[in-house]
Amino acid sequence: MNKRKIIMDCDPGHDDAIAIILAAARPELEILGITTVSGNAEIEKTTINALKICELVSLTDVMVSKGASEPLVRVRETAPGIHGDSGLDGPVLPEPSRSWSGEHGADTIVRLVRESKERVTILPTGPLTNVALALAKAPEIKESIEEIVLMGGGTFGNWTPTAEFNIWADPEAAKKVFDSGIPLAVMGLDITHQAMATREVIDQVNQIDNRVAKIVGELLEFFAQTNQEMFGMEGGPVHDVLTVAYCVAPELFKMKEVNIAVETKGEFTAGTTAVDLLGVTGREKNAKFGLKLDVEGFWKLMYEALEQY
Amino acid sequence: MNKRKIIMDCDPGHDDAIAIILAAARPELEILGITTVSGNAEIEKTTINALKICELVSLTDVMVSKGASEPLVRVRETAPGIHGDSGLDGPVLPEPSRSWSGEHGADTIVRLVRESKERVTILPTGPLTNVALALAKAPEIKESIEEIVLMGGGTFGNWTPTAEFNIWADPEAAKKVFDSGIPLAVMGLDITHQAMATREVIDQVNQIDNRVAKIVGELLEFFAQTNQEMFGMEGGPVHDVLTVAYCVAPELFKMKEVNIAVETKGEFTAGTTAVDLLGVTGREKNAKFGLKLDVEGFWKLMYEALEQY
Amino acid sequence: MNKRKIIMDCDPGHDDAIAIILAAARPELEILGITTVSGNAEIEKTTINALKICELVSLTDVMVSKGASEPLVRVRETAPGIHGDSGLDGPVLPEPSRSWSGEHGADTIVRLVRESKERVTILPTGPLTNVALALAKAPEIKESIEEIVLMGGGTFGNWTPTAEFNIWADPEAAKKVFDSGIPLAVMGLDITHQAMATREVIDQVNQIDNRVAKIVGELLEFFAQTNQEMFGMEGGPVHDVLTVAYCVAPELFKMKEVNIAVETKGEFTAGTTAVDLLGVTGREKNAKFGLKLDVEGFWKLMYEALEQY
Amino acid sequence: MNKRKIIMDCDPGHDDAIAIILAAARPELEILGITTVSGNAEIEKTTINALKICELVSLTDVMVSKGASEPLVRVRETAPGIHGDSGLDGPVLPEPSRSWSGEHGADTIVRLVRESKERVTILPTGPLTNVALALAKAPEIKESIEEIVLMGGGTFGNWTPTAEFNIWADPEAAKKVFDSGIPLAVMGLDITHQAMATREVIDQVNQIDNRVAKIVGELLEFFAQTNQEMFGMEGGPVHDVLTVAYCVAPELFKMKEVNIAVETKGEFTAGTTAVDLLGVTGREKNAKFGLKLDVEGFWKLMYEALEQY
Repeated sequence: MNKRKIIMDCDPGHDDAIAIILAAARPELEILGITTVSGNAEIEKTTINALKICELVSLTDVMVSKGASEPLVRVRETAPGIHGDSGLDGPVLPEPSRSWSGEHGADTIVRLVRESKERVTILPTGPLTNVALALAKAPEIKESIEEIVLMGGGTFGNWTPTAEFNIWADPEAAKKVFDSGIPLAVMGLDITHQAMATREVIDQVNQIDNRVAKIVGELLEFFAQTNQEMFGMEGGPVHDVLTVAYCVAPELFKMKEVNIAVETKGEFTAGTTAVDLLGVTGREKNAKFGLKLDVEGFWKLMYEALEQY
Repeated sequence: MNKRKIIMDCDPGHDDAIAIILAAARPELEILGITTVSGNAEIEKTTINALKICELVSLTDVMVSKGASEPLVRVRETAPGIHGDSGLDGPVLPEPSRSWSGEHGADTIVRLVRESKERVTILPTGPLTNVALALAKAPEIKESIEEIVLMGGGTFGNWTPTAEFNIWADPEAAKKVFDSGIPLAVMGLDITHQAMATREVIDQVNQIDNRVAKIVGELLEFFAQTNQEMFGMEGGPVHDVLTVAYCVAPELFKMKEVNIAVETKGEFTAGTTAVDLLGVTGREKNAKFGLKLDVEGFWKLMYEALEQY
Repeated sequence: MNKRKIIMDCDPGHDDAIAIILAAARPELEILGITTVSGNAEIEKTTINALKICELVSLTDVMVSKGASEPLVRVRETAPGIHGDSGLDGPVLPEPSRSWSGEHGADTIVRLVRESKERVTILPTGPLTNVALALAKAPEIKESIEEIVLMGGGTFGNWTPTAEFNIWADPEAAKKVFDSGIPLAVMGLDITHQAMATREVIDQVNQIDNRVAKIVGELLEFFAQTNQEMFGMEGGPVHDVLTVAYCVAPELFKMKEVNIAVETKGEFTAGTTAVDLLGVTGREKNAKFGLKLDVEGFWKLMYEALEQY
Repeated sequence: MNKRKIIMDCDPGHDDAIAIILAAARPELEILGITTVSGNAEIEKTTINALKICELVSLTDVMVSKGASEPLVRVRETAPGIHGDSGLDGPVLPEPSRSWSGEHGADTIVRLVRESKERVTILPTGPLTNVALALAKAPEIKESIEEIVLMGGGTFGNWTPTAEFNIWADPEAAKKVFDSGIPLAVMGLDITHQAMATREVIDQVNQIDNRVAKIVGELLEFFAQTNQEMFGMEGGPVHDVLTVAYCVAPELFKMKEVNIAVETKGEFTAGTTAVDLLGVTGREKNAKFGLKLDVEGFWKLMYEALEQY
C-alpha cells in the first residue's frame, strides 16, 4: 500500500495529541517527522508533550524536532487556560525515552520534503511559524508539497471576536502560508466545532479497554471541562484531529473552494481569516475550506483507531 | 399616550421603505424627521425614494432632509445589485407632492434632537455618515439621544467576507458612532437574516387587501429575487425593519450586551464589526447586539401594521 | 483693487494670531470670515483668542464662528506645552466686545463659499476638521474654492517622529482635504522652520512703536521660549504666518508640485504626510509644497505690516 | 591584536562591494563570514557578486553563504535602476574560483555566532531578512551579538517618500531586528548621504595605482551616474561603506541614542523608520542613529585602505 507521507507540525495540546494518536493508528499514513511550535504552551513543553505521545503510541522511531519558540515577527503569547500549565494537563503520560533531534523544526520540514521521493503533506495544528520559516528559507520546496492540511481560522474567532488562536498567534506566518500557492485544506472553527467531544463521546471512548484509549478519555475529559469554563461549550471540540481525519477519510468532509486572506494589519482584527464564502472579493481561490463534517463517521473513525491499540 | 420620538436615517432601499411603512403605522412612535444618506443608491435617489414612501403612507408632514452624498472620509460605493437602479425597483410608487427640505440631514438630526423636549431615538438603516456628522458638529447632543437602534454589522459579512454593507460603506462614521458612548442596539446580519421574507411571507402579505400591502408585496418580491441571485438566499431578509420592530416590541428580540469595535484599518477587514460575544477582549460593553428574533411575532407585527392601511 | 477673498480657519495659537494680524494689515486680502477649531487649545479658548485678536486689530465686523471641538473620527489632544494654558499665553490682550456667531465653523465655510461671487481661498492653520466637515456636508463647494493654503505636514515631524501636529491631530480630516482635488499650497515644517523668530527678529519687531507690534513682540517672545524648551530651537518658527504671506507675496516662496498622501493607518506613523519630492510613487500631483522661503523678504513683509498699525 | 569579529550580510551592490573591500583591508576586523540576501538584485546575482569581490581582494577563505531569496512575509522587489542588471554593473570583475557554501545564510549567521568565542558584530547592508530568520530560528544568539551595525532607514526616504530601500524591502524583518534588544548602530540616509562619491573623490581614487583601486573607481563612476539620473544627486552616496568605517573608526561618526520604530502597517508608509530625534514618543531607546560624518576623515580612511592593495 502506498502510504501518504505526512509531517505533523504541532503544539500539543490535547487535540494535537489525539491527532498524533489517530495518525499513528492509520495504515494509510506514514509520519515522516513531527515538528513542534510554541502555541498552546511554550516550545519546551509542546516538544516534551510530543515526545510523550510518541512514547505512548510507540512512535519512537519518528524524529521529533523542536521548532520556533516565538512568532515570526510578533511577541509570543500562549493559551494556558485551555490546555493547563503543561500544555497537556489531565492524564499521566509516559516519560519519553529520548530527546528531540538537534535539528530545528523548520529545517526538518525542509529536509524531509527535499529527501522524500513522493510529495509530502504537512499537517500544521499550531501557529504556522515553522512552515513559514521553512518556506522563507527554501521557497523551492513548495513544488514538493502535495497539500497543507491545517487547523486554523474560520469565519468567526475564539481568541478575539474575529480571530482563531493559531492564526492570531502568528498572523504574518499564516499570511505567508496562505499566500504561498500551495494547495490548502483549512479546518477552521466552523467545522472543528462540529467535532465536539460530548459526554456521550467520552463515554464511548472510555468503553474501549486499552491504555491509549484510557488516556484519550482523560484528555477529552480535561479539554471538555476547560472549554466549558472558558467558552461555555458542551464539551471540547477536537480541532486538530480533523486534519488527520481529512487525510484518511476526505469523504467525511464537505469542503468549499474559496479565497482566504489573512489580516495582519487591523487595529482589532489581526489574525482574522477573511473566508470568501460568497465569492464577493474577486480574489483567486487558494484553499478548500471545511464546511460540514460527517460527525458520526468522524467519531467512528476515532473509535476504530483507538480500538487498535 | 407618550409616543417614542424617532428620527429615521435611511437610504431606501426596499427594507428601509418597509421600515418607514411599519413605523408610520404604529401608534407608539412619533417620526420627528426622516434623513437620507447615500448607500443602497446615490443620495438623490434615496431621497426621492423616501419622499415617495412618505407619499404612499401619508407622512407628508414629516420633514425629509437630504444628507451625506459620500462617506465621511472614503470614496463612495453603492449597492445597485440588490435594490435595482432606482434603489427601490419593483413597484410603481406615487410621485412625491413635495421636495426635500433645504436643510442637510445631519443638521436636521442636530436640530430635532435639540428641539425635542424628550430624548430622541435615532434609527439609522444606512451608512452612519449623517449621524457621525451630527456628532462631529454637535457632540453635546449625545446627552439627548436616548438610543441609537441601527441596522449594521454582525459576526459575518455580506459585502466582504467579514463586513456588512452599511458599516463597510463608511467605517470611520461607524467607528465614531460605536465609540460615542450613546446607548446602542445593533441589528446585525446574525439577527436580520432571521427575518427572511420567504414565499410564505410574501403570500401572506399579498392576502392583505390594500394599496400599501400590495406595494410591500411587490417590494418583497423584487428583494427576494435579487437576494437569491446574489447571495443564494431563500427570500430577502428585511434587515432594516428590525430597527422599528425593536422600538415597538423589544420583547421579540433576544439581545446580548457586548463590546463592538469597528475596524477602520485592516487590509482585508475594513468595516468589520468585532462583536465580542465571548467577552475575551476585556473592552467595555457599548452595545446590545441582536442574537435571536421571535420570527413569528415579528411577521405578525408586520401583517397587523399592513392591515391598518 | 480686486481683493483676494479668504477664510481663515485657525486655532490661535501664537502663530495663528500673528497670521490674522498680518492678513488684517494687507490691502490685497479680504477676510470673509474666521472659523476656529480645537488644536493648539480647546475650542472655547481658540475661539476667544480669535475674538481678542480681532478686537486688537479692529476686525470686529468679520464673523468669527466656533467650529469643531474634536477631530473627525479620533479622540482629541491639544498642544498646551507650546502655547500655554490659554492657547495664547504671553501678552495681555483686549477683551472681545462681542461673541462668536451662532453658526458652526464648518457651516460658515460652506455658506461663505456659496455666497461669494468670486472663488474663495481657505487658509487652515490648525487641524483640518472644519474644512473636512464642510467638504463632507457640501462636496459641491470644491468648485468654488480657488485654493487651500494650509500649514501642516512636512517631510519630518514635530509631534511624533514623522508627523506634524496639525495633520496628526486629525489625520482623517487631512486625508479628506488632501484627496479632494482642490488646489493646495502646503506650508510644511520644511519651510515654516525657515521663518524663525530669532532674537534679532524680535528686536526688530520691538523697535516698531505701536500697540499691535508690542503685542506681537510679546507673542514671539513667549513662543520662542517654549519652542526652545520643547524642541531646542533658536527661537519660534511662525508656522501659520506663511499661509498669509504666500497669498500676498508668492514670489517669496519656492514651491514644488508633488503628490502628498496622508497616512491614517500606520502603527507609528498616523498623520504622516508622504511628500513625494523625488517623484517615485507615480501618484498624481495634488499639491504645491513649500521648499524655500526668502527669509529676509518674509520678515520685511511682516515688519511693514506691523508698521501700519 | 584582538580583531573585532564581523559577519557581513549584504546584497552587492556597488556600495556593499566597496564595504567588503574596505573591511578586507583593515587589520582591526576579522571577517567570519559573508552572507547574501536578495535586495539590490536577485539572490543568485548578489551571491556571485560577493564571490567576485572576495576573489578580487583574496578573501577566498571566507565562507560565502547564499541567504534569503525573498522577504520574510512580503513579495520581492529589487533595485535594478541603481546597480544595473548584474547588481554590480560597471567594472570587469574576476570570475570566482569557488561557489557559495551549501549552508543557508541565516544558518551561517547562527552557526558563526554560536561558534565564536567572542561576541560577534553583524553588518547588514541589505534587507534584514537573513538576520530576522537567524533570530527567529535561534533567539538565544541575541546574547552573543555585540552589535548590529546596519545601513537602512533614516528620517526621510529614497524608495518611497518616507522609506529607505533596505527597510522598505522587508519591513517585518526590520521590525524584528529593531525590536530585538540587540545594540544597534544605524547608518540611515541622513548620514550616508554625507558620504558622497563626488567627481573629486573619484579622481582621488583613480590616482591610486592598483587593480582594486581601479575597480573601485569604476564602481563609483557607475554608481554616481545612476544616482544622478535617478535621484539628481551630485555623485553616489556609498551608503553601506559606513557600517565598516564605523566599526573601524567610530570617532568619525556623531551618533545619537534614540528610539527607532519600524512601520509595517501603513497605507503609504510601510518600511518607514520613525526615528525619535526629539524624544517625543516616550519609547525606550533602542539604537544609535548616525547624525554627522567626518567626511574628510571617512574618505581618508578609504584612500588609505585602497593604497594597501
